[in-house]
Amino acid sequence: MAKRTKTGKRPPQREPKPERQAASKKDSGKSVAQNGRTLTAADLAKQLREISISEFFTKNRHLLGFDNPKRALLTTVKEAVDNALDACEDAGVLPTLIVDVQPTDREDRFRVRVEDNGPGIVRNQVGRIFGKLLYGSKFHRLKMSRGQQGIGISAAGMYGHLTTGQPVAIISQTKAGAAAHYFEVVIDTKTNEPKILKEEKITWNGHTGTSVQIELEAEFHRGRWGVDEYLRQTVVANPHVSITYHSPDKQTLEFERATDVLPREPKEIKPHPHGIELGMLIQMLQETRARTVHGFLHSEFSRVSARNAAEICEKAGISEDSRPGNIARREADALLMAIRETKLRNPPLDCISPIGEEQILAGLKSSIEADLYECVTRSPAIYRGIPFLIEAAIAYGGNLPADKPARLMRFANRVPLLYQTGGCVITQSVAALNWRQYNVDQPTGSLPVGPLVLLIHIASPWVPFTSESKEAVADYPEIEKEITLALQECARKLRVFLSRRRRHAEEQRKRQHIEKYIPFIGEALQGILEFGDGERTRLVRQLTELLEKSRKG
Amino acid sequence: MAKRTKTGKRPPQREPKPERQAASKKDSGKSVAQNGRTLTAADLAKQLREISISEFFTKNRHLLGFDNPKRALLTTVKEAVDNALDACEDAGVLPTLIVDVQPTDREDRFRVRVEDNGPGIVRNQVGRIFGKLLYGSKFHRLKMSRGQQGIGISAAGMYGHLTTGQPVAIISQTKAGAAAHYFEVVIDTKTNEPKILKEEKITWNGHTGTSVQIELEAEFHRGRWGVDEYLRQTVVANPHVSITYHSPDKQTLEFERATDVLPREPKEIKPHPHGIELGMLIQMLQETRARTVHGFLHSEFSRVSARNAAEICEKAGISEDSRPGNIARREADALLMAIRETKLRNPPLDCISPIGEEQILAGLKSSIEADLYECVTRSPAIYRGIPFLIEAAIAYGGNLPADKPARLMRFANRVPLLYQTGGCVITQSVAALNWRQYNVDQPTGSLPVGPLVLLIHIASPWVPFTSESKEAVADYPEIEKEITLALQECARKLRVFLSRRRRHAEEQRKRQHIEKYIPFIGEALQGILEFGDGERTRLVRQLTELLEKSRKG
Repeated sequence: MAKRTKTGKRPPQREPKPERQAASKKDSGKSVAQNGRTLTAADLAKQLREISISEFFTKNRHLLGFDNPKRALLTTVKEAVDNALDACEDAGVLPTLIVDVQPTDREDRFRVRVEDNGPGIVRNQVGRIFGKLLYGSKFHRLKMSRGQQGIGISAAGMYGHLTTGQPVAIISQTKAGAAAHYFEVVIDTKTNEPKILKEEKITWNGHTGTSVQIELEAEFHRGRWGVDEYLRQTVVANPHVSITYHSPDKQTLEFERATDVLPREPKEIKPHPHGIELGMLIQMLQETRARTVHGFLHSEFSRVSARNAAEICEKAGISEDSRPGNIARREADALLMAIRETKLRNPPLDCISPIGEEQILAGLKSSIEADLYECVTRSPAIYRGIPFLIEAAIAYGGNLPADKPARLMRFANRVPLLYQTGGCVITQSVAALNWRQYNVDQPTGSLPVGPLVLLIHIASPWVPFTSESKEAVADYPEIEKEITLALQECARKLRVFLSRRRRHAEEQRKRQHIEKYIPFIGEALQGILEFGDGERTRLVRQLTELLEKSRKG
Repeated sequence: MAKRTKTGKRPPQREPKPERQAASKKDSGKSVAQNGRTLTAADLAKQLREISISEFFTKNRHLLGFDNPKRALLTTVKEAVDNALDACEDAGVLPTLIVDVQPTDREDRFRVRVEDNGPGIVRNQVGRIFGKLLYGSKFHRLKMSRGQQGIGISAAGMYGHLTTGQPVAIISQTKAGAAAHYFEVVIDTKTNEPKILKEEKITWNGHTGTSVQIELEAEFHRGRWGVDEYLRQTVVANPHVSITYHSPDKQTLEFERATDVLPREPKEIKPHPHGIELGMLIQMLQETRARTVHGFLHSEFSRVSARNAAEICEKAGISEDSRPGNIARREADALLMAIRETKLRNPPLDCISPIGEEQILAGLKSSIEADLYECVTRSPAIYRGIPFLIEAAIAYGGNLPADKPARLMRFANRVPLLYQTGGCVITQSVAALNWRQYNVDQPTGSLPVGPLVLLIHIASPWVPFTSESKEAVADYPEIEKEITLALQECARKLRVFLSRRRRHAEEQRKRQHIEKYIPFIGEALQGILEFGDGERTRLVRQLTELLEKSRKG
């Protein structure tokens, strides 16, 4: 079917049609409408319409994590918990959450309520936060946080409204001791604007905080993708959080905080010039308040010293004093080339707040019984100009199942990722590592098999998720490399542990063997050398000690 | 860390902290701000901002298939070709495309141009089609087409502008013989609105059509994820298409059409009531032009006969003559329950246009040399009220590599899917099938291994993709089931072929064995019975025939 002409070589394929025949057919298609279809450009134009972002995500709600009722329940809890934790931490408050999933009179509908002790939400923002997609505080800054897109919680509310017709119910109190506000909000999917159906003052908890309630079509279940598991993993990565969970089957789980120290607050950073693209650079040049290109480079980016800025201008052949607004596209292009050729310090790393080895190990030990715990926090690295950091931990042995694939816990900015395991660079990196080299079984290209739990955390001011549901991390090679390095470091310690254990087991075996025979040797020597029973006992003891010593030496 | 109270049982986990201590810590977090952070609700409110959809996708461009320069090139070609093919088919024209990928003076930048012989685009729509995300003709209708979201081509233009600062250049001619229009368009990412930088009349081809040119940062390569492979697979699934491809290394590939019959035009359909949700139903009730609920049900949905509509109203306890606009939420809920309980005919199937067994086999045979070709077109099935259809084909043997995993070609609405293989329900279904049962090697949970090519096509008025880049299909259980059934049907035929071939090979072996010995038997008998050489030859022949006959019987 395919054929190269001109300088091309013939591809190794069959030719079903001689060229001339095809050429005539090509012509035949040009003007004659077929099958009675004769739509003109004007006809087609009539069908064109704008699509609101809410309509888009209503129809594509699997992109947001609402493809089935099981997952919808988890996604809703997750979005509400993420928001609550972010708000508390931003305000410097140790988070105390109530997660309440209640059945309704219809078995396919549940009421999810998440309450926090954060700072609350000011009145005039409530509508847009819960009733407008793409609205939030985290998108336009480079700062590590759980939420980043301004979609999650309004999408959950939209799904709830779509499936049950019920609005999102919000209580917010921004001042301790003052009145709280109660709101009912829905999203107008045609315009992506909030509609506030009800607003009233109420008396609430006494302290500040927010409560969000969403009724939705859902399915409740325990296990690997359940709310229980999500919360359990959440407290492993967030030992400073306290959560009370009331499940639909009338049980209550109390997750108590294991530390009362808040994680170090990650700093907001400016973009690093090595991650910038031409279009972005042009836009920043137009919008900057800096009066000179030198000032622009120095002030709008991280890690551009005054000397670096001068060097870049010189390389680009642009005067340091040029006004940024006057830089033409060609000059911007030269500027970008100069930036890329200039050696700059890596982005600052205080924008990342790792969980930390101590906390991870504490979290693992409190939830998993094993013989070996190891943890590695890597130094930060860079993808597309954005810093990120990988932490990896393993737990091995104990009563973990020995004949099953390792259990993998994935985290991004302290949030557990439960879905889309296969499509995540974390899973792919674990499967790509050669575990047999570390004495762990592994079917080719799959997760290792053994009494093993793996925990991987990626922390970054911008985690590249593979979809809006934020359940899997995209496979940037830099990220894969860091995960692999972290895993290798853990796996090496595991190998040492395993060989020591094997050596120890072997020694035990040999020792038992020798111990078993020494008394007979003692008896034989007693017969030959004719000494008493006391002498024999002493001899046996000495022989045992001697052998033991020689083995240890 | 976790502990159940009330009716709950203790989970099998360790308790790191006694309850009292934790309780006191819980209190300590409530009001005291830590780490010097004391952001109030008002402080947090100041950080809130609206996010334009273009900003969102600029930052998340991996969602659209622009995560690296290799993939960016393919995605750009793909979006332009999809649009061109849709336009031609909508107008009833046999598509004749030119795909031109040219190098520029910078080795990391390419110029992609795709030209079609479709109906062209009317002047006042050009800006929005190429300079506004979420604008298109295909989102608001349920009709099978390649594009569906109104994102693709403007996203490609946005990426091009972002990386090279160049606008999208469009030529459109809507009337043969008249003048064509030339446009240069960019997208304003802050507002998601088009800016037309240039517009002028030019003399062009003479016939109607559209040409789109995008300059972008990209990387050119051949092979599995290259433009060549994409176009090659495109013509397998679209034998009515003719494409001329000029590659950056000065080669030209001609893909000539193998048929001059356009695929049957898929019909636009109305939603099927069994896929509807409460929120959607309420919205439709508000917007309908129907004057009664009975009329609403009958006219706004597919497959609701007058009798069905009456039955639904009765079950819901709603008068048939009620005005749709007056239906309250509770009544709508009752209506939805009644709809779900009412048996309705499946959605109409003429909304799907399969490639067809004959065309698929022709496509496969023209590009792959094998010993066996099999193809199955399933009957349409339904997910979430939306019809879809699966086609599967296999090619086996020939000079395909015997020791490698099967090559899998995935298609959605005739478009080849090259990326995100692992995250696609098609791949997952292939790997989940037990191929050993069909005498094909398979590492557990992986693709089968052998001289095997698999082709799977999903056709639907709404394909549920896992991301906006439309490279993988979401795993709805109904879809997985249909793929499995189609594969099983092909695999059964393969098993028959393989056992026949094995039997044949064995027969060959036996036959050779016997043939080898018959002459000796002949000689032996000649010695015993003393007849001439002619007699011996006859005997040998008869013996051979006899043995052969007995084997066949």
